[in-house]
Amino acid sequence: MQHFLDNFFYPDSVAVVGASKNPGKAGYQVLKNLLTLGYEGQVYPVNPREEEISGLKCYASLREIEGKVDLVMITVPAKAVLPVIDDVVARGDVKAVVVVSAGFAETKTEEGIAMEKELVAKLKAAGIRAFGPNCTGVINTSIKLDTTIEPTVEQNKGPISIFSQSGGMAGSILLWAEAQPIPLGFHKWAHVGNMCDVNTLDVLEYYGQDEGTEVILIYMEGFDEGRRFMETAREITKEKAVLVLKVGRNELGSKAAYSHTGTLAGQDEIYQAAFRKAGITRVDSMPDMIDTAKAMSMQPLPKGNRICILTEAGGPGTMAMDELGKYKNVTLANISEEGQKALKEAMPPMALICQPQGYLDITAAAMEEHHKVALELVLAEEEVDGVILISVPPTFLPPESLAESIIEAAKDAKKPVLTVLMAGKWVHRARQMLERAGLPTFDTPEQAVRAMVKMVERRQYLDKVKGGEQ
Amino acid sequence: MQHFLDNFFYPDSVAVVGASKNPGKAGYQVLKNLLTLGYEGQVYPVNPREEEISGLKCYASLREIEGKVDLVMITVPAKAVLPVIDDVVARGDVKAVVVVSAGFAETKTEEGIAMEKELVAKLKAAGIRAFGPNCTGVINTSIKLDTTIEPTVEQNKGPISIFSQSGGMAGSILLWAEAQPIPLGFHKWAHVGNMCDVNTLDVLEYYGQDEGTEVILIYMEGFDEGRRFMETAREITKEKAVLVLKVGRNELGSKAAYSHTGTLAGQDEIYQAAFRKAGITRVDSMPDMIDTAKAMSMQPLPKGNRICILTEAGGPGTMAMDELGKYKNVTLANISEEGQKALKEAMPPMALICQPQGYLDITAAAMEEHHKVALELVLAEEEVDGVILISVPPTFLPPESLAESIIEAAKDAKKPVLTVLMAGKWVHRARQMLERAGLPTFDTPEQAVRAMVKMVERRQYLDKVKGGEQ
Repeated sequence: MQHFLDNFFYPDSVAVVGASKNPGKAGYQVLKNLLTLGYEGQVYPVNPREEEISGLKCYASLREIEGKVDLVMITVPAKAVLPVIDDVVARGDVKAVVVVSAGFAETKTEEGIAMEKELVAKLKAAGIRAFGPNCTGVINTSIKLDTTIEPTVEQNKGPISIFSQSGGMAGSILLWAEAQPIPLGFHKWAHVGNMCDVNTLDVLEYYGQDEGTEVILIYMEGFDEGRRFMETAREITKEKAVLVLKVGRNELGSKAAYSHTGTLAGQDEIYQAAFRKAGITRVDSMPDMIDTAKAMSMQPLPKGNRICILTEAGGPGTMAMDELGKYKNVTLANISEEGQKALKEAMPPMALICQPQGYLDITAAAMEEHHKVALELVLAEEEVDGVILISVPPTFLPPESLAESIIEAAKDAKKPVLTVLMAGKWVHRARQMLERAGLPTFDTPEQAVRAMVKMVERRQYLDKVKGGEQ
Repeated sequence: MQHFLDNFFYPDSVAVVGASKNPGKAGYQVLKNLLTLGYEGQVYPVNPREEEISGLKCYASLREIEGKVDLVMITVPAKAVLPVIDDVVARGDVKAVVVVSAGFAETKTEEGIAMEKELVAKLKAAGIRAFGPNCTGVINTSIKLDTTIEPTVEQNKGPISIFSQSGGMAGSILLWAEAQPIPLGFHKWAHVGNMCDVNTLDVLEYYGQDEGTEVILIYMEGFDEGRRFMETAREITKEKAVLVLKVGRNELGSKAAYSHTGTLAGQDEIYQAAFRKAGITRVDSMPDMIDTAKAMSMQPLPKGNRICILTEAGGPGTMAMDELGKYKNVTLANISEEGQKALKEAMPPMALICQPQGYLDITAAAMEEHHKVALELVLAEEEVDGVILISVPPTFLPPESLAESIIEAAKDAKKPVLTVLMAGKWVHRARQMLERAGLPTFDTPEQAVRAMVKMVERRQYLDKVKGGEQ
């Protein structure tokens, strides 16, 4: 056991207090996720009103479980939680508790605040760590552990780890990741809830030293230990990307954030400066968060800021250029004269090669082979650091064949290739093929450009702090 | 026949020259779309190398077709087009031709330009109108007519009509519209191609007077007859919304647009001013274009600019507020003291009512009935002009039940209700239910806010030009 949070993410056994056969109950969903996603540890349902749930023996109390219990999920109503904590403590073997139940300090009532205080006191005295209360749970895809009350979703393993201050956003990120052409692979996921004990800083530190985690994805509204958080992040970002979606950007948003989590208004510039200093990648929306994480987790960072736009559709290509034109720290790549000559020879006669420099519109006459050769040629260019490939495949160019050509051309590239097939259901399977081959796809040219810009910015940050190594 | 373009959009019969059994040919796809989407007119395949295609008699030449031919689709290679035009002219009954074939003026070769000139001369002499060359076709969902080379997609009827200067974007819009929770309903669709005859101004005028069209959706890069186009649009926008996606917004984008369609760089401010004067709604991206069209085609315009944000998830609610805070011409609605009292009584105890004013976070404890009552109460408020409802439905609130509650509460509303269920596949069916009931859904809070802002701006424009009538 390297870190106390391992008790939550690598339990050999989990007890679910409040396990239920009623889909309207939190204990139903937690048990369902534990049992249907492939977790191989022991699962113990606890509910005095049931003999058996889902073929498992149901225990009347935690005290009756004979086997060892590592993690306890508590899903009973708030008023029943403290007696359960007594049972937890009495067992002696439990190291970790997640209090899913709501109705504590977040109610801002005297009673709720007092109950949470007592909860903390009991746990502290026993040396037991806790997530919550009002917490939707944790996930570790590497052992197929899903302790959450979230909908049961298809989960792929990957190098992204996620945590959120908001339960709604934690769930939304999980479901958004699943809704990608193929479910976006991730490693660990956590909602911190009321943070009576484990807080965002703990999780950040943990993910920072976690071997399976390369990209950390955070939704936050307020930072209680702002300085320590930023200092920790600053160490982590030397090795791993840290993406933060932080709302409350103007007066209206700040008022809503204050009402939600008590974050103070009017500090967005301060956060912005702190993020920059800590090497944190700030993302502006859910799609940007998922897209940037997808790009960074599937592709290498560019070595520089020189980007080539390769399109077969002038409209979407121009959209990409409009977006790229917004960023001063990124530039179009210089294609060598030789490269241009080779492209002109290989592409359809109407192809627009480097008009302007670094922009290639190979036109709708481009077939599979044209795409393959064009991508190979630009990737081979010394002054190209990354490529965005855009297509609205016409009916005579089956998207699946196009995907095969792109995969073939990009297979040995040490440069990021981001692809946009902008044609709805027509390209769905092709997008799945690309993502299975490690090539991220995006809904729009603008989203691909923004992801590429974030990759360039990360490279520029690393160059600055590390003098160009890595 | 009211307008010459009726010959394209309401033909009783269509001949497809170059009809083919080979999926790699344009003539294959045109025939497939005509035959599989339900068009009830006569379809005549023309190809001297086939006896029969898809169970239809195939004619060796246009001249051999005994029945009347209204519209001719030409899909043969460029060099074979002029002889086909001779056949068209010789028949005497054809009023409309779409030249799908590429290889004309767009090649910028002497030969291509000369061929297009001759094509125009022949058609003009015979009084026959033409779309193209290099044109992907037209669609009229009201008679299930699809003459295009686009992928065969599910098409719903609706009040939106679309045209595009770019074939790629024309196709992309079609496919994007289909990829909504339910395919976005539209009326007519056209790609103008090289505009050797019919041009964007013709189509704009036609859609402007078209009874089934309420929202006109345009992708353009350049405006050859800019002044007339804007004057025409200015008349139309008094009655119908005109949405334009116009790229080339900065130096890079302008260079790409110039390379694509010859649009001059550096004129974005001029366009922007012209759009504003003409009452054109400018949209900034594909998703914004589809979202705004969806909102305007499914919901009434707000009577004013006072918006209520109703959320059960603080994070996404704050995102909506951040986005709303960007626009000076939109404001949060004032909820009356009585309304606030009623809301406080009906909502879960932790609900945040009007913190700040016009913003309601009814929390994840809100069940179906809470959503229904909250939406009914805010819609009944005199000073609320529109509502954005946001949810990440927890597992104990089945999204389909939530959708039913929203539909029930919104059913008699004379105010726009835009909904955001931000939870991927988990809410897909619920989004379909909402959209079938006429309630548009959006992927993100920001997209819903932007659509609402565009609706407010349209209302403000109408108030200005019409003194508040409508």
